[in-house]
Amino acid sequence: MSTHTESARTFGIRHVTRDGTREADDHLAVEEPMEIRVGFGPDDRRTARSLSITMRTPGNDFELAAGFLFTEQILTSREQIRAIEFCGPPAPGRSTSNIVRVDLASDVELDMARLERHFYTTSSCGICGKASLEALEVGDLPALDRDRPRIKSELVHGLPEALRASQPVFDRTGGLHAAGLFDADGKLLDVREDVGRHNAVDKLLGRRFLDGTTPLGDWLMVVSGRASFEILQKALAGGVPMIVAVGAPSSLAVDMAERFGMTLIGFASPERFNIYTGPERMI
Amino acid sequence: MSTHTESARTFGIRHVTRDGTREADDHLAVEEPMEIRVGFGPDDRRTARSLSITMRTPGNDFELAAGFLFTEQILTSREQIRAIEFCGPPAPGRSTSNIVRVDLASDVELDMARLERHFYTTSSCGICGKASLEALEVGDLPALDRDRPRIKSELVHGLPEALRASQPVFDRTGGLHAAGLFDADGKLLDVREDVGRHNAVDKLLGRRFLDGTTPLGDWLMVVSGRASFEILQKALAGGVPMIVAVGAPSSLAVDMAERFGMTLIGFASPERFNIYTGPERMI
Repeated sequence: MSTHTESARTFGIRHVTRDGTREADDHLAVEEPMEIRVGFGPDDRRTARSLSITMRTPGNDFELAAGFLFTEQILTSREQIRAIEFCGPPAPGRSTSNIVRVDLASDVELDMARLERHFYTTSSCGICGKASLEALEVGDLPALDRDRPRIKSELVHGLPEALRASQPVFDRTGGLHAAGLFDADGKLLDVREDVGRHNAVDKLLGRRFLDGTTPLGDWLMVVSGRASFEILQKALAGGVPMIVAVGAPSSLAVDMAERFGMTLIGFASPERFNIYTGPERMI
Repeated sequence: MSTHTESARTFGIRHVTRDGTREADDHLAVEEPMEIRVGFGPDDRRTARSLSITMRTPGNDFELAAGFLFTEQILTSREQIRAIEFCGPPAPGRSTSNIVRVDLASDVELDMARLERHFYTTSSCGICGKASLEALEVGDLPALDRDRPRIKSELVHGLPEALRASQPVFDRTGGLHAAGLFDADGKLLDVREDVGRHNAVDKLLGRRFLDGTTPLGDWLMVVSGRASFEILQKALAGGVPMIVAVGAPSSLAVDMAERFGMTLIGFASPERFNIYTGPERMI
């Protein structure tokens, strides 16, 4: 338990093979809680309130906070954010606090119910996958263009390896999820890593949100693991029309992609992949 | 989108290889929201309240509800549960509702703050990994015996394949997490699958909790993915002294295993594995 960095730490371990046991050093992804608070700055009488606590890998914390607020459809434009800063002294062994405060412009009305609404009962069917999809339509979702981007089939085979090759922390730890943004020519624009799949997506889309370059209608997002409802929902909030997953999609992810006109690809590998929805974007 | 079962569904897809594209059927793990409500039965004036909503794979829903309440340290014995039942009509395409109500014995005092307390600020360091560990100590955790179970090293190599071979839904879908309970001879006692890693653990430990056979001081738990703080915390609540993960542990998982005297093994495979903490249980 020696070297500290922000996103990986070194542990003394025993490495066991069929030939025997030896002592070794192993690098592991750091997992620490992060709290997101939302306030209106020091001149506003409304006090900051805690919105969520997530277990994440430290690094790109402001992107994670902004991305979370964006992909959960609580904020829609970067102009709604006045400032983002760490709150309080550094946490033990870290250079910054684990609390991030996002100060909003004073005229922003916080839709706190939004955080829970995804799963709320609707009159049609109570709590179920369909209700989860219907709840999303209440928000301000960007419309997706069925014609873009247009992706060559052979290009998809190379995406998982391109993502993997650009994961600096995974290289050391062997245990981090990643989300990457690619253009229609298969060029990697950006990648983020985290112990949490959803956090990697929030960091990736949070950067673009803070840059004011959303919605992301010309790009595709590649995720290292499976494609769940939550991942698709975040991509949709960012206006990403195409998701390529290295692992399997869930039933609800496919239902969602179908309903909102997204292209969903799963089990992507150099040899093969499956197109679940939106084949019209494939050349 | 044709055949429905409770935990897998069949979708029409396009399967792409280097040789071309063909239409095919693909089986995917079902993902649906499930709400856990806690009440005190029809004769009690206290109304049932919603405790959590999780995305899960349907099946073993009562175990999931009981296991969640148990591993989050809200309940400590099965006698605290009077009844578990589905609430309301079946969800679309399913044979049961997605709402499970757990009725408690009338003298149970609900520690609702417990659900959030894991990450609460402590006076020593604010919000951080250390505070998360300290918060756990507030609860009624079973003490672990450093001497048991005692596991032969060569036995560990075979655990991932033994778990994998007993995943019926994974066989069809290629995309489900699993948690399995093994005895010290490497015999698989029980396995549960879910799209969510934490749900698979809750289902597995929930069964034992309902059977009244916890704490599980003689067994080890094998998980198909990574070992995060959350997984270790649930195992500890169940009194499981040893965790074997196919994937990587996080830094906080190792810190937690160290602090509470658990044995944590990662990257388990037929060729090798790493012992992160608790080597005294290995023969």
